[in-house]
Amino acid sequence: MADTLADLAAQLRIDSIRCTTAAGSGHPSSSMSAADIMAVLFQKYLRFDFQQPKAPNNDRFVLSKGHACPVLYSAFKAAGAIDDRELLTLRKFGSRLEGHPNPHVLPLVDVATGSLGQGLAVGVGMALCARLDGLPFRTYVLMGDSETAEGSVWEAFDKAGHYGLDNLCAIIDVNRLGQSRETELGWNLEAYAARVRAFGWNAVTLDGHDLGAIDRAFAEAQAKKGQPTCLICKTEKGHGSSLIANQDGWHGKPLPEDKAKDAIRELGGERNIRIQMKKPEAVKPPVQDKAAPLQLPTYEVGQKEATRKAYGDALLALGNARPEVVALDAEVSNSTYSNEFQKAHPKRYFEMFIAEQNMVSSAVGMTVLGKKAFVSTFAAFLSRAYDQVRMAAISNATVHLCGSHAGVSIGEDGPSQMALEDLAMMRAVGGSTVVYPSDPNQTAKLLAQLADRQGITYLRSTREKTPVLYPATEDFPIGGSKVVRQSGNDVATVVGAGITLHEALKAYELLKKQGVAVRVIDLYSVKPVDAKTLRQAARETQGRLVVVEDHWAEGGLADAVLEAFTGEREQLPTVVRLAVTKMPGSGKPAELLDAAGIDAGHIVEAVTSLVEETARGGDGRGKPSENAWGHTNA
Amino acid sequence: MADTLADLAAQLRIDSIRCTTAAGSGHPSSSMSAADIMAVLFQKYLRFDFQQPKAPNNDRFVLSKGHACPVLYSAFKAAGAIDDRELLTLRKFGSRLEGHPNPHVLPLVDVATGSLGQGLAVGVGMALCARLDGLPFRTYVLMGDSETAEGSVWEAFDKAGHYGLDNLCAIIDVNRLGQSRETELGWNLEAYAARVRAFGWNAVTLDGHDLGAIDRAFAEAQAKKGQPTCLICKTEKGHGSSLIANQDGWHGKPLPEDKAKDAIRELGGERNIRIQMKKPEAVKPPVQDKAAPLQLPTYEVGQKEATRKAYGDALLALGNARPEVVALDAEVSNSTYSNEFQKAHPKRYFEMFIAEQNMVSSAVGMTVLGKKAFVSTFAAFLSRAYDQVRMAAISNATVHLCGSHAGVSIGEDGPSQMALEDLAMMRAVGGSTVVYPSDPNQTAKLLAQLADRQGITYLRSTREKTPVLYPATEDFPIGGSKVVRQSGNDVATVVGAGITLHEALKAYELLKKQGVAVRVIDLYSVKPVDAKTLRQAARETQGRLVVVEDHWAEGGLADAVLEAFTGEREQLPTVVRLAVTKMPGSGKPAELLDAAGIDAGHIVEAVTSLVEETARGGDGRGKPSENAWGHTNA
Repeated sequence: MADTLADLAAQLRIDSIRCTTAAGSGHPSSSMSAADIMAVLFQKYLRFDFQQPKAPNNDRFVLSKGHACPVLYSAFKAAGAIDDRELLTLRKFGSRLEGHPNPHVLPLVDVATGSLGQGLAVGVGMALCARLDGLPFRTYVLMGDSETAEGSVWEAFDKAGHYGLDNLCAIIDVNRLGQSRETELGWNLEAYAARVRAFGWNAVTLDGHDLGAIDRAFAEAQAKKGQPTCLICKTEKGHGSSLIANQDGWHGKPLPEDKAKDAIRELGGERNIRIQMKKPEAVKPPVQDKAAPLQLPTYEVGQKEATRKAYGDALLALGNARPEVVALDAEVSNSTYSNEFQKAHPKRYFEMFIAEQNMVSSAVGMTVLGKKAFVSTFAAFLSRAYDQVRMAAISNATVHLCGSHAGVSIGEDGPSQMALEDLAMMRAVGGSTVVYPSDPNQTAKLLAQLADRQGITYLRSTREKTPVLYPATEDFPIGGSKVVRQSGNDVATVVGAGITLHEALKAYELLKKQGVAVRVIDLYSVKPVDAKTLRQAARETQGRLVVVEDHWAEGGLADAVLEAFTGEREQLPTVVRLAVTKMPGSGKPAELLDAAGIDAGHIVEAVTSLVEETARGGDGRGKPSENAWGHTNA
Repeated sequence: MADTLADLAAQLRIDSIRCTTAAGSGHPSSSMSAADIMAVLFQKYLRFDFQQPKAPNNDRFVLSKGHACPVLYSAFKAAGAIDDRELLTLRKFGSRLEGHPNPHVLPLVDVATGSLGQGLAVGVGMALCARLDGLPFRTYVLMGDSETAEGSVWEAFDKAGHYGLDNLCAIIDVNRLGQSRETELGWNLEAYAARVRAFGWNAVTLDGHDLGAIDRAFAEAQAKKGQPTCLICKTEKGHGSSLIANQDGWHGKPLPEDKAKDAIRELGGERNIRIQMKKPEAVKPPVQDKAAPLQLPTYEVGQKEATRKAYGDALLALGNARPEVVALDAEVSNSTYSNEFQKAHPKRYFEMFIAEQNMVSSAVGMTVLGKKAFVSTFAAFLSRAYDQVRMAAISNATVHLCGSHAGVSIGEDGPSQMALEDLAMMRAVGGSTVVYPSDPNQTAKLLAQLADRQGITYLRSTREKTPVLYPATEDFPIGGSKVVRQSGNDVATVVGAGITLHEALKAYELLKKQGVAVRVIDLYSVKPVDAKTLRQAARETQGRLVVVEDHWAEGGLADAVLEAFTGEREQLPTVVRLAVTKMPGSGKPAELLDAAGIDAGHIVEAVTSLVEETARGGDGRGKPSENAWGHTNA
């Protein structure tokens, strides 16, 4: 066995060299440090059925140090999951073997890695899931030493320790060398061990090139009860090649062809060992709560309720209806109202404390295992996890985010608690869906649809109670909008969403008293945006749009509205944007909406001046203007 | 002294109750737990001249648990820095005393807090600065216990330990209760101590309501050499009021008036003790490198160079010219090219390892002390620190960010390393400046201007070498753009920036061969955007714009271009956006630009079809179209 393992480890190193040299880029040295660990793990411990990579009782393996994917792909080859020809397509256009692992193209991996420090948090989510479902599979996460500088890693160590996840095993490949220099802790294994232990883990220090020691450490991890175990492995970057082993200057560099040949010779030459992976034990399907018909909460028109409360009510309803729904919150569940779900379904609620990065990545880990994860905190603090959200999208994960307390309308707490960039942030996530309801019934209907939507979804909720506008029978398709006020005489359209829709409605009444008719659109679906309704409104209201949003002027509602007028070959309307443009402070919601220039009074002013200015000199019937472009629109 | 301290602590509690009750919101209980710590620190240790809050040798105090600002404002009152009337304006519109501390309005505080877990990192920056300047001041950071769940806290503990910052003192107010429940570690002071020690700190556990113990602990911290010290204080939330002390349900709640009266009576009644703050010792101004005239690097037209290299060259030049320039990098200095600065000015270069959150907050701490901080890493990984960037803007801090390796054009590394949301993210930061140069000379000129700009600035650099387009004599004002190709016959305008400008120029040549003349604009200034030039181009090129960007379609260059056409009451162009719309993979830069539909070939197609479609049915001389809005433009 030891010989086989040594041969296998050499093969993983050789194949890591071969594929990176063929690619002309990549990370052979960081792969080679981990080859012995990978050989033992894949040959002796990991129970995985490559025919059914998503089988519920497969052990999970997360390569947190994603740049070392050559050694992972080499292990896949050794396990027969890919062939040698595919291995040599590494990093080439169209290959499933990207420069960092990516389930978008390669379903053999569960999550995209490559932004360091996120893998352990994913593993925490998987391990929590195993416990929830009563499944005996184990989760292994291979980390680099450099990435332990990321705080997200310690959020994950903390949660795993707190929840005593003995089904989770982390391995730190301490190869001492980062990208440009030695790591902070070098080969000080005891320093790593002290940290890991202080965070509630069992820690084992060992020589990461001693196959027997690795084997014993994995066995210890498997046997350890009540605590997760971390293997802290002293290794050499490029181990096995005298040219590059433990040398500076070989991070992220393939060996030139001649040097590759030398190294392969030094490693004993090419070979083709096949790993017979252990299969997972047969298990009964996990016992789940019963499914039930969805009964969304309803609210009476005229009643006042905050959309954040409606989020909580709807989340509870989804939880009652669907056993796969789980909820995570960053210790503000009594503000986001996810605590309603928590009370009803305590096992499916995960308190992630004030650690947003770990919360998002753990949710990703849960979704890989079939859960439908709803993640909530103050919208402002989701900015803490933007990289994790970005990577979740690359992972092709479906995660449902809810950010509460958005905009200046939260009032007295001041700007640190006000999300004013969340729409921009979430719109710019690949494949995302972004909604911003103005009404509790709408919130519930939207959340129910988001639950069936793929990718990253984001619901922005409002702190303040606002009047219920829509009957519970109304539908709100994602990608749609509601024309809430209109007439044949509308001289402009006011577009709002969430809190600003209520200001738009007040402005409508004020303008009506002045004899000015405006159309009012509730643009609850920010991405995708309802281009058809917006374009129709522009055509029917003389090309005048006033967009009002409780958000910085950039990247939010107004940009979404303008997006509706690109792509089609037609002229843009005249758009006036009312948005937050200077740093807000504390105060009452109404004072802050006024100070930001986004309340009803400012909407009235904007409409009035827009109508005046664009009517000046015109006859109101479409007289061609002097600066009309020299073409017509199809 | 002990009596005075006890009286002072009671006053801080009483004033915290008074101002929150007057406000009708806020955090008295979290203030009261810290009152004894604050009393000892302000009365006996903190050397601070309130007449000159920015004096270089003042000790610094950062209230990381920003929601406890009532106790800070109460201490300011006791120190005579604000009066009682102002104290009672807490959280009111227009008051300097916001719900969380904010230097935008209250210069007595250095940084905005309220997004938890960021204060210690700011303190790390301040302590590093003191060492750099040879100043003996000390930095104190008061943290909550809940916020130690944030990974950013451990990034900061790690850096402070690594750099042995014995001029830094952290205090954890372990009041056991979070917002909705008990913290993970409760009153397990030893668990905190083990973690802090494992990260290289001296740790002292104590009763945070024992004034003598607090005094001794601060004295120990002051005396400790070679290591930072952390005081881990067992406290009670709401300590001093039998009604709320150590009770659930009193997070973030003011006492009703009658209960406030009872509590104040229980605390011995109102008083007016004045703290005589210790003054900082007189010091000679720090010895700095000499200033010199700025000599920016230059590049020959036709040469090829990457803008990331130009960033490194220009940063070095700025460093040579200005002694206050410091640089921070997240262990990728050989990729961002900040290593050129590092080699020339090793003392002013701070290796922050792979911990982007701490890097940004530490830079904020340095800027408070007069440094000009340049922060670089891969643009994708700045998303890790978005909350820190957001808070830096609220802090009114000036921080210069550079993100390298933007867009699909980085090639083989794949999407995890590609920034595709950075422009959206940075545009949506209050008061930010965003530039995206296409050329090395331009990069240098822009960086020199950014260095004198207030607020958050962001420069997006490109991995690939591209041809030098502009002579070194050319100027590139922020807010400007360059019309790089134009004629009297232009039928459309192509807008690019960075890598896509080079594709636009290739498209220009291809179109020229087909007899089609287009204008090409280099929109290097993304925020603020050059509305004048864009509007002129629209007027002069038949209202046809094609915007091409290596970024998701949302929030980036196209949204910036559209912004130029809002607010003005004039007829608007037809805009086609070419951007990344599906998840990219690995491959050669040219393959990925093609696959994303943003290379020269796709620009040619877009221009051709836009011209065809918008000419269809028109006579080319401004025939009014059927869907022109029913009004003319002034």
